[in-house]
Amino acid sequence: MTSRMKAAIFVEPGRIVLDEKPIPDPGPMDAVIRITTTTICGTDVHILKGEYPVASGLTIGHEPVGVVWKLGSQVEGFREGDRVIAGAITPSGHSYACLCGCHSQDGAGTRHGFKAMGGWRFGNTIDGAQAEYLLVPDAMANLAPVPDGLTDEQVLMCPDILSTGLSGAESGGTRIGDTVAVFAQGPIGLCATAGARLMGATTIIAVDRVPERLAVARAMGADHVVDFSQVDPVEEIMRLTDGRGCDVTIEALGRQETFEAALRSLRPGGTLSSLGVYSADLTIPLGAYAAGLGDLRIVSTLCPGGKERMRRLMSVVASGRIDAKSLVTHRFRLDDIEAAYDLFQHQRDGVLKVAITP
Amino acid sequence: MTSRMKAAIFVEPGRIVLDEKPIPDPGPMDAVIRITTTTICGTDVHILKGEYPVASGLTIGHEPVGVVWKLGSQVEGFREGDRVIAGAITPSGHSYACLCGCHSQDGAGTRHGFKAMGGWRFGNTIDGAQAEYLLVPDAMANLAPVPDGLTDEQVLMCPDILSTGLSGAESGGTRIGDTVAVFAQGPIGLCATAGARLMGATTIIAVDRVPERLAVARAMGADHVVDFSQVDPVEEIMRLTDGRGCDVTIEALGRQETFEAALRSLRPGGTLSSLGVYSADLTIPLGAYAAGLGDLRIVSTLCPGGKERMRRLMSVVASGRIDAKSLVTHRFRLDDIEAAYDLFQHQRDGVLKVAITP
Amino acid sequence: MTSRMKAAIFVEPGRIVLDEKPIPDPGPMDAVIRITTTTICGTDVHILKGEYPVASGLTIGHEPVGVVWKLGSQVEGFREGDRVIAGAITPSGHSYACLCGCHSQDGAGTRHGFKAMGGWRFGNTIDGAQAEYLLVPDAMANLAPVPDGLTDEQVLMCPDILSTGLSGAESGGTRIGDTVAVFAQGPIGLCATAGARLMGATTIIAVDRVPERLAVARAMGADHVVDFSQVDPVEEIMRLTDGRGCDVTIEALGRQETFEAALRSLRPGGTLSSLGVYSADLTIPLGAYAAGLGDLRIVSTLCPGGKERMRRLMSVVASGRIDAKSLVTHRFRLDDIEAAYDLFQHQRDGVLKVAITP
Amino acid sequence: MTSRMKAAIFVEPGRIVLDEKPIPDPGPMDAVIRITTTTICGTDVHILKGEYPVASGLTIGHEPVGVVWKLGSQVEGFREGDRVIAGAITPSGHSYACLCGCHSQDGAGTRHGFKAMGGWRFGNTIDGAQAEYLLVPDAMANLAPVPDGLTDEQVLMCPDILSTGLSGAESGGTRIGDTVAVFAQGPIGLCATAGARLMGATTIIAVDRVPERLAVARAMGADHVVDFSQVDPVEEIMRLTDGRGCDVTIEALGRQETFEAALRSLRPGGTLSSLGVYSADLTIPLGAYAAGLGDLRIVSTLCPGGKERMRRLMSVVASGRIDAKSLVTHRFRLDDIEAAYDLFQHQRDGVLKVAITP
Repeated sequence: MTSRMKAAIFVEPGRIVLDEKPIPDPGPMDAVIRITTTTICGTDVHILKGEYPVASGLTIGHEPVGVVWKLGSQVEGFREGDRVIAGAITPSGHSYACLCGCHSQDGAGTRHGFKAMGGWRFGNTIDGAQAEYLLVPDAMANLAPVPDGLTDEQVLMCPDILSTGLSGAESGGTRIGDTVAVFAQGPIGLCATAGARLMGATTIIAVDRVPERLAVARAMGADHVVDFSQVDPVEEIMRLTDGRGCDVTIEALGRQETFEAALRSLRPGGTLSSLGVYSADLTIPLGAYAAGLGDLRIVSTLCPGGKERMRRLMSVVASGRIDAKSLVTHRFRLDDIEAAYDLFQHQRDGVLKVAITP
Repeated sequence: MTSRMKAAIFVEPGRIVLDEKPIPDPGPMDAVIRITTTTICGTDVHILKGEYPVASGLTIGHEPVGVVWKLGSQVEGFREGDRVIAGAITPSGHSYACLCGCHSQDGAGTRHGFKAMGGWRFGNTIDGAQAEYLLVPDAMANLAPVPDGLTDEQVLMCPDILSTGLSGAESGGTRIGDTVAVFAQGPIGLCATAGARLMGATTIIAVDRVPERLAVARAMGADHVVDFSQVDPVEEIMRLTDGRGCDVTIEALGRQETFEAALRSLRPGGTLSSLGVYSADLTIPLGAYAAGLGDLRIVSTLCPGGKERMRRLMSVVASGRIDAKSLVTHRFRLDDIEAAYDLFQHQRDGVLKVAITP
Repeated sequence: MTSRMKAAIFVEPGRIVLDEKPIPDPGPMDAVIRITTTTICGTDVHILKGEYPVASGLTIGHEPVGVVWKLGSQVEGFREGDRVIAGAITPSGHSYACLCGCHSQDGAGTRHGFKAMGGWRFGNTIDGAQAEYLLVPDAMANLAPVPDGLTDEQVLMCPDILSTGLSGAESGGTRIGDTVAVFAQGPIGLCATAGARLMGATTIIAVDRVPERLAVARAMGADHVVDFSQVDPVEEIMRLTDGRGCDVTIEALGRQETFEAALRSLRPGGTLSSLGVYSADLTIPLGAYAAGLGDLRIVSTLCPGGKERMRRLMSVVASGRIDAKSLVTHRFRLDDIEAAYDLFQHQRDGVLKVAITP
Repeated sequence: MTSRMKAAIFVEPGRIVLDEKPIPDPGPMDAVIRITTTTICGTDVHILKGEYPVASGLTIGHEPVGVVWKLGSQVEGFREGDRVIAGAITPSGHSYACLCGCHSQDGAGTRHGFKAMGGWRFGNTIDGAQAEYLLVPDAMANLAPVPDGLTDEQVLMCPDILSTGLSGAESGGTRIGDTVAVFAQGPIGLCATAGARLMGATTIIAVDRVPERLAVARAMGADHVVDFSQVDPVEEIMRLTDGRGCDVTIEALGRQETFEAALRSLRPGGTLSSLGVYSADLTIPLGAYAAGLGDLRIVSTLCPGGKERMRRLMSVVASGRIDAKSLVTHRFRLDDIEAAYDLFQHQRDGVLKVAITP
């Protein structure tokens, strides 16, 4: 019986390669799962391009679906063979950050218990999910059993895409009857659109320029779609809302243009919910900010994780509220993951998300 | 019996002069109050300098203490002679904005009921309080009876300074045991410091460079004071919090430096509560924003108004929780208001707030 | 031109009769609307039976759809002929209660500004909507224009049924992925079921015993229906939730049995959202309350009103999120309202709601 | 070196005796602390009387102050000899309940992760703190270092009394300017009074009948005290509030009389925050509940625990905001704990809390 596994490893900017590594062994609180399906995230492409630095030799990926293979000695409540997922963010549950509800900024092990993005460990500070096996830390807080009847592809969006996307609507404080605009309709933005729908917004405006994505946006719940290559999106949103603006806007790309348009599209007293990963300083224009007197809120959210979050998201899928698997447009074997990266990073062939199976 | 009154009138940038005007007559829903005490706000100085544009001929000022002089025909619940204050912001109560709790952005009369800063009418879109008489619109929503035993100077901070200052702590979501830093200890910042104390923060750090203001900050509840001319305030806050950062930071000046320092002083997952009136675009540095992944919130608040707010603030004063009158450092007759402006705008003689009496 | 109109008038317990009254004349802040459609509420039946006392001679009804007929001299923003609705609750906007967001307990005119149920005026403390004309007080806060393209029957549920029903889910704090049980599927309960769906609950359990109502509950969004005449509803809910219980339960009848079952169906830390109008003291069983140690919440809500609420509810209907008109099962002329009361109070012929047209 | 320790052990109703037990040995995630100070809670008296059942042989007590004696193999971030406290409630951090913020109802090990009162383990489901040594489960989530300069008696109220008491004000949603009444001024009620003060309430009314307790209530922040043996407390509260009633009332005894008076003292739209441990069914009077139409909330809270909560509470003490040690009126050696129980349960000699030192 082999103790080696295949894994997609970051070597240097521009190079993620499939190579071999030892299968990890769980510590007392950990579990090791055998990956059955995983996927590639836009963040992984940032890593590939060297825009987000990780250690050379690290296995990439933070979206695991799998089967419990080995449990740490202290892990209770699970059995080998259980089908599970784990969130992209794996909070310890016991840091000061976790205990005050700020699980994604978990600083377990640090003096104060807070660490920016500290809850994001897979493919960032520990080996990730694009491999045959994955060590899940703090397994009791993070392993989430997959309900019977759900396929891997149905739950594949839960660890990150659905969790992040829905959090855009949640952190925005979306209420029944709200007007919500979502800027960019990649996988995260599409789930933000779905989240606005799920929370009772009644005028949902999706902005992008790719016709296929705008079509999916409609399927996910958008009432209106705006092609920003054809019209000024802020003007169009003001036209659609008869000059009122939005209660909530969601930024799902990570650029100044979308951030600024999201701010300009708000009504006084509205909330900009920011999901994008930025790569440069942002500017808040004085006028769009009403000189600080507009009762505006700008909130950012890092993908909520932990098994309770995963349980809820899988319940969203199981109940048929959102057809998450429709985002999976392409399928690859782990052996072909380099090709998958190539397709995904260049957004060829209408790709939204790829399913990778070892 | 004369029907003319004295009023401080904006003529053009650089010129606010005391002149005569007709005493206003109330419409059916209005009241006219005889001003007994008022004051000058930093915003009035912005107007004087031409940095915030208002119409030539407008009476300035938005902080009235007075006595009901004439009631509109439909106003119930008040009598002539009642001692009252009104908030700087005078919501109508009946706009869409008001009915969803966003009173300061009241767009009564507009199609959608939202208007940026629309609730701020005194000395902005209608005649203000630096006069012998003041028309208070929507009197039933805005006249707040002064409790027996409170002097004019005790309640003079309620219409704006105390309301805005406390809202900094409130909008920040201050909780028991929080660490809060307040940037700039002018009158608003001092009340923000007092607000953090009032809401249960247990480590309150006041930042300024004027020793007298830092001394008042201690009296208002600061546990630590930081002189930013002597030390880097972010470094000092990190030292004082042993590297953790603040749960809430409050910006009370309206400058990039303070905004940025407030952002850099947050712990992951913290909230920047912005009170300042800015006069230029703001920059959010990428690192301070954790690239959008820090679960950070930036919230801005315009002075809450309306009689219920005023009632609560006067209760804060009446119960001895905050010694608001200690902010009144100088007193002038309305006849000498030009001298008062001169003193106040140049912050001479340790001035915090001036009391103006007709 | 006549100045008299027909109206359904409460005479004494057991007698609501159609009679004539003068058409009301609006005060400066009021409007008079010509009713085009109205309906009968369960509360009206309470009044008819003498269980809820109102003055003899009062016109009954609080669910108006109509056309602006006359505007008070101070009312701006509306024109005669505008199609409008008004909520069952008509807040003044200017009481202390309104200004702190508690519009339904509006005590305008009282010393403190709070009055239990004070916002409910139509058919309670002033003449109501089951008439040819209706005086709407504080018209600028309460008249809500009907969007083009919506019929009277589509918006007829907004003034009370939809507002109250949705508030059950809102006050319960329903979140994405919640399990929610709704006890009783009359019109209010059905809208509570729809509200739970609208806010993202993923396991919605509707309880009643009338098969037709349970069928409508499914159409409104229930995932499971429970016939309490066949099974013990608490046991069945525990079976359906695999022993966990509900995050939120909604009481929509006003009886001890439903209140108690709603409490027993909660998970620890859950919220019972109470909508029913009770007619006797309630008992909280010690065990169901975990002796006070269960982190349980019991919240009650009176129908939210005001034009902003109505605007949002009509947006729910206009966007197709809820098919509110499907609750209208029967139609009557105002001339036949006594027959309508007879049908409605005895719940004959599968009646849910009746539409009454003058 | 001995491996036995002294412990106060529940034998049967009416008998808690000091006896010997083995010193516990920590599992991988646990710690064992050497108790330096502990205390007796009203709940322990319930146990003594047999009103709350626990297993015969269990060590009682849930309020530990001590020193780390032995750490489990997987526990990081602490060293032997560290001065620490742990909350009465010791959440695991990894149950579904914990991960959704409901730590006190922690059902770690159960199928669904929720268990009523499941977070309360010390002296309830595992051995407690009235002993020479104490095993603290899930040590990384629960051990809270005592800041330098704080004595044992200063932090002795944090594990339960201060946490529960403050939570009364917190769960009530106390806001700046609120009127709050607290029913019963035992240790919990006194801390609730202090909590209302700490959160900005400006009219705080403390109700009891023991003059000494009312005097302490004033010292803890009450603006008014009401002796219910002299006046009807509801009438007196209405008199003090000029008929308005309270925004928040806090029940801190666990009886129908106090629960009902707390409900009757609310303004419409107010919140009853319940802290008491009840021993019988409760009645909600129809009128006091406004027949379900009063927008009232009834919330109950079980003592929040975990190290972050303890850190915040110790910060409240360290900053001088609350003089918690003033509640310690009597001191005993662990050897004399039976005498301490005798004094405490009969509330002799003005006892509030006793300090027990091994």
